[in-house]
Amino acid sequence: MLTDESLHKIARIAGPEGILTGDAVSSRSAGWGHSENIAARAILRPKSTTEISQIMALCHAENQPVVVHGGLTGLVQGAMTASHEIVLSLERMNKIEEIDPINRTMTVQAGVILQHIHEAVDEVNLMFPLDLGARGTCMIGGNIATNAGGVRVIRYGMTRDLVLGLEAVLADGTVVTSLNKMLKNNAGYDLKQLFIGSEGTLGIVTRAVLRLLEKPVSHNTGFVALNSFEQVTKFLKWMNSELGGNLSAFEVMWQDFYRLVTTAPAYNAPPLPYEFPFYVITDSLGTNQKDDAAAFEAALAGALEQQLIADAVIAKSQRESEAIWAMRHDVEQMQRNGPVLGFDVSLPINEMNDYTRSIQKQIEAQWPDGDCFIFGHLGDSNLHIVVSPGTVDKDMRHKIEEIIYLPLQKIRGSISAEHGIGIEKKPYLGISRTKQEIHLMQTLKRSLDPRNILNPDRIFDF
Amino acid sequence: MLTDESLHKIARIAGPEGILTGDAVSSRSAGWGHSENIAARAILRPKSTTEISQIMALCHAENQPVVVHGGLTGLVQGAMTASHEIVLSLERMNKIEEIDPINRTMTVQAGVILQHIHEAVDEVNLMFPLDLGARGTCMIGGNIATNAGGVRVIRYGMTRDLVLGLEAVLADGTVVTSLNKMLKNNAGYDLKQLFIGSEGTLGIVTRAVLRLLEKPVSHNTGFVALNSFEQVTKFLKWMNSELGGNLSAFEVMWQDFYRLVTTAPAYNAPPLPYEFPFYVITDSLGTNQKDDAAAFEAALAGALEQQLIADAVIAKSQRESEAIWAMRHDVEQMQRNGPVLGFDVSLPINEMNDYTRSIQKQIEAQWPDGDCFIFGHLGDSNLHIVVSPGTVDKDMRHKIEEIIYLPLQKIRGSISAEHGIGIEKKPYLGISRTKQEIHLMQTLKRSLDPRNILNPDRIFDF
Repeated sequence: MLTDESLHKIARIAGPEGILTGDAVSSRSAGWGHSENIAARAILRPKSTTEISQIMALCHAENQPVVVHGGLTGLVQGAMTASHEIVLSLERMNKIEEIDPINRTMTVQAGVILQHIHEAVDEVNLMFPLDLGARGTCMIGGNIATNAGGVRVIRYGMTRDLVLGLEAVLADGTVVTSLNKMLKNNAGYDLKQLFIGSEGTLGIVTRAVLRLLEKPVSHNTGFVALNSFEQVTKFLKWMNSELGGNLSAFEVMWQDFYRLVTTAPAYNAPPLPYEFPFYVITDSLGTNQKDDAAAFEAALAGALEQQLIADAVIAKSQRESEAIWAMRHDVEQMQRNGPVLGFDVSLPINEMNDYTRSIQKQIEAQWPDGDCFIFGHLGDSNLHIVVSPGTVDKDMRHKIEEIIYLPLQKIRGSISAEHGIGIEKKPYLGISRTKQEIHLMQTLKRSLDPRNILNPDRIFDF
Repeated sequence: MLTDESLHKIARIAGPEGILTGDAVSSRSAGWGHSENIAARAILRPKSTTEISQIMALCHAENQPVVVHGGLTGLVQGAMTASHEIVLSLERMNKIEEIDPINRTMTVQAGVILQHIHEAVDEVNLMFPLDLGARGTCMIGGNIATNAGGVRVIRYGMTRDLVLGLEAVLADGTVVTSLNKMLKNNAGYDLKQLFIGSEGTLGIVTRAVLRLLEKPVSHNTGFVALNSFEQVTKFLKWMNSELGGNLSAFEVMWQDFYRLVTTAPAYNAPPLPYEFPFYVITDSLGTNQKDDAAAFEAALAGALEQQLIADAVIAKSQRESEAIWAMRHDVEQMQRNGPVLGFDVSLPINEMNDYTRSIQKQIEAQWPDGDCFIFGHLGDSNLHIVVSPGTVDKDMRHKIEEIIYLPLQKIRGSISAEHGIGIEKKPYLGISRTKQEIHLMQTLKRSLDPRNILNPDRIFDF
């Protein structure tokens, strides 16, 4: 733990606005979905990589645990702190340093909010494809540290695929600057991969070079009803074949979820009748307004003709597209009947039907009045499952977690598709990773952060 | 070094066909571009991950250096061996274990030849997009270990982007099996990233799950002449905007290269006159034969109209497309006037014009009869530079390397875009990587292979 003297040194490094203590800490929310406030020895708000490096060198020397904060929109308790820990928030490192339209790159500090990136890039007619519900609050450093996914992964990949270069500060204060701007660079190990998706346990992401793309000019959205899960998988294959590089979303909703988000108090009107077991939202992004609309229509018409789908509507305007997507994003509806437990799993698509039927049956048997909503990024093998059993206690939580997670082991699914492990999912990591894999993760952690001071005890035990 | 007794143990593990010694070693070529044969204590040819694990456990126990061999098509001396080293060849681990058309994945052993993957996938109407000149010889394990690039990176990414899961054997024989089949899996560190592109120094890739895509139905190829480098960059932006997700290649040739590959003894006829400083081959791959051809033509017509390009031809058949690509692939022509030195650099596109002019000028000043050919994957920021100075001696090589590499430091280019570092480029790694980066690479190497037995002393010194 830092001595008071060292904490004063840090206060001098960070400046008067760079350190919060006392009430200024305890009056801050612990973030989205948390009713409690932050408990921590101090919140540091450095303005530069150099400040972070100096702070970490001191914390390292005195074994002070540090937890990194971005926009606090994570869903796995990864940013939780205890009163002896220090919070290092990237909130004041919020500069967009450069947009380079020729190389189509953008250099940003880690604390820039995702939506600000979208807005800045839009102005120069380019696109940064990463998009998710928390866009107005989450910070790019957190997106990188957690390898965020979202609704366009099927086409553009996860955050990992959109980061060209990175700067990170290691636990001992070493600054590793790899602000590569090129699509290809095989000069030695690709070190940025260490920091992407390791949830801040191996280094603090301070700056990044992001890959930008030309802005699409066409956007088509369809809403489709299907009679069976087999149809869903065949329709996915069909859309991939028909739209190729333009297919940019393939989101599925099980019937219960669709009904929930289209009945009051939800605002959304149901575009198709309720009689089908599955519904899909699908998007294409392209370069030619007229041709792309025709190709999209032809793809859906062909699917209807071949009975790959049961019914379909196509959005005729941006507003109609937004109305279709509003159903998908109205996840708050699931909390109507009390507290919920949310899960984010991935599994091979051919296993999904059996898996979901089995868990639905088990939930129903144990909590006859409860609900089990299923929806998500099926095109990426990723489902979100939300269980609403009425009330939730610790035992119940444990039972439900076992129902959802245990069957994933045999079918080689993942207990976390995009949310990460954090603290919440740590007990279940062994379902998706072998002993050898976890041991190798520990080897990496121990060699980069031998004192276990950086986001300690996240993902696995030290 | 292994005792003779342990070598006998290994012979029993690998079986009679699994070990070569004496003449069977020294009569084997050291690979593409090498006139000499292999020098090594033995060549092991295991048939399974278990055999490799047992072999490595013995080698680890007795500090025996092991060099991993795939198809031996590397260009940076990464597979070179000395007589005290043991070669571990993946050539008999050549099974395609599974093709899963629903999840669109393929599970392969590391010794499968890239072209065999293409053929197998083609039969089920899918596509594995990685493609490069060595496809008939290179093995997927080597592609993964070196993060191979090739001609379609602009659309599909490098090998790293096409690997979903991996199995690797560590230096001490530990088997790390991460044969993930999903697009999304954030359950802990993404360990496969450690082994992709680390040139076999951190582990031996034994099996992999590859990502497959629907096979495109349309293929359009254009050959374009341009008046200035500025036109080249504007034309790249134009094609990205017009073709979006369908643009699958953007290869540039400087005039000298174009002239060389279209004059006898080369077989290729020149599709356009020689008067232009730059030529570009561009491809689109799509899902609709008629629409895609029209869009491709319209894109080139638009570029002509706006004077982004000076002249263009479009291939009217697969044969014409192949004839255009044959120019690009006829790299042997560069050896007409004696030995050559080849380079594979990447740099920000806006720096390319100044950089290439400057190195051409310097080469011309020092070797007035020499040639400096430039071509490559401009859409990926990657140029190949081949210098043919007449004769090559050690001093000359060093001088030319300095001309090519030293200016990259200031403009943050890379001394290796896709070929890797191996042994050949090791002295120059510091141009593209900082001390902190190289130190972090060493930290990783030391924690995964503390005895430095696995592909020792590649990329950087231990």
